[in-house]
Amino acid sequence: MRISQLAETTGVPVATIKYYLREGLVPEGERTNATQARYGEEHVQRLRLIRALLTAGGLSIAAARDVLRHLEAPHDSVGEVLSVAQASVTPAAPEGIDLSRARAVVDGLGWQIDPDAVDALASLEAAIDGLEAAGFELPEGALDGYAEAMATVAQAEIDGIPADSVEAAVHYVVLGTVLVEPLLLALRRLAQQDASWRRFGG
Amino acid sequence: MRISQLAETTGVPVATIKYYLREGLVPEGERTNATQARYGEEHVQRLRLIRALLTAGGLSIAAARDVLRHLEAPHDSVGEVLSVAQASVTPAAPEGIDLSRARAVVDGLGWQIDPDAVDALASLEAAIDGLEAAGFELPEGALDGYAEAMATVAQAEIDGIPADSVEAAVHYVVLGTVLVEPLLLALRRLAQQDASWRRFGG
Repeated sequence: MRISQLAETTGVPVATIKYYLREGLVPEGERTNATQARYGEEHVQRLRLIRALLTAGGLSIAAARDVLRHLEAPHDSVGEVLSVAQASVTPAAPEGIDLSRARAVVDGLGWQIDPDAVDALASLEAAIDGLEAAGFELPEGALDGYAEAMATVAQAEIDGIPADSVEAAVHYVVLGTVLVEPLLLALRRLAQQDASWRRFGG
Repeated sequence: MRISQLAETTGVPVATIKYYLREGLVPEGERTNATQARYGEEHVQRLRLIRALLTAGGLSIAAARDVLRHLEAPHDSVGEVLSVAQASVTPAAPEGIDLSRARAVVDGLGWQIDPDAVDALASLEAAIDGLEAAGFELPEGALDGYAEAMATVAQAEIDGIPADSVEAAVHYVVLGTVLVEPLLLALRRLAQQDASWRRFGG
């Protein structure tokens, strides 16, 4: 199909598609002459994926490109997929950040984490900083409660990684990491409404 | 203290403080003459809170102003605090959005939600859309698992609402809603590393 049909099929304007092509998010079509190219089903799929990463996933263009690169790169084992996926969607740790509180939390929980994955640790440190800076004290035991809930979630997610195909595993982990976040946060808010209703009434 | 000392104490540049003053995020100081004002401990606290909301909470200036307004407004009951807090930190539902899938999920879970709180429902709908648009199918039972984990989290959070003071309740709910999100997401990633390590090895 031509670029105009690709735009019509996906609902992504031609100008936006051209922008994604320039940014390397979408592979070039098959040239039919000097000014035209032909696009196929893989372009439709790719555009849908990009829209999902940018809107539902809330990623920047640069982060989306990183994710797509990781989806395409060859990977050796299912086990390494997770750290690669996390690296592509976790903001880089600021230089020289003190991670001692985040490390203390993780050690206290007895979690075995990737020693090279300081970015996720930095996200935890930043979250703890944010609570403290705002003068918000978590109630006694709340942090352990959050950790336990997330451990249950993570265990199910890791158990769900397709182990028969590295490619399927990459797809599952990269997209699951990004796209499940808004799902979890939306469910939390709705669950709060339910719990509030049961405690305080309608 | 003068604005320069306020900047030094909080690490927020003078120009930024002036911007927050203009935007109504920080209350005016006590005028000492035509060009100077005096600031106190409440300004220090307020600036720390704003920084936390903008950085750790990831809020826009407009959303932060909404949150601060809700923190200051009088509230009648602890029970109404949650919906007010959620309204201030949840993006408004797009006009005419079809919420049928989100409603089906909530009904399936048997959750009793605030009938006016369509914004949280719209966030769930958007998250489901995002997964579908990316061609990501949640494994069988995964959605129920996420919902169950978030119900546990929410139950503990609602149980933790200070019931003796509406003001304390507002503070707890508004900040807890925003600032705990990055904490949960960071913990999920670290918990995934731990689960991955136990399944696949280091």
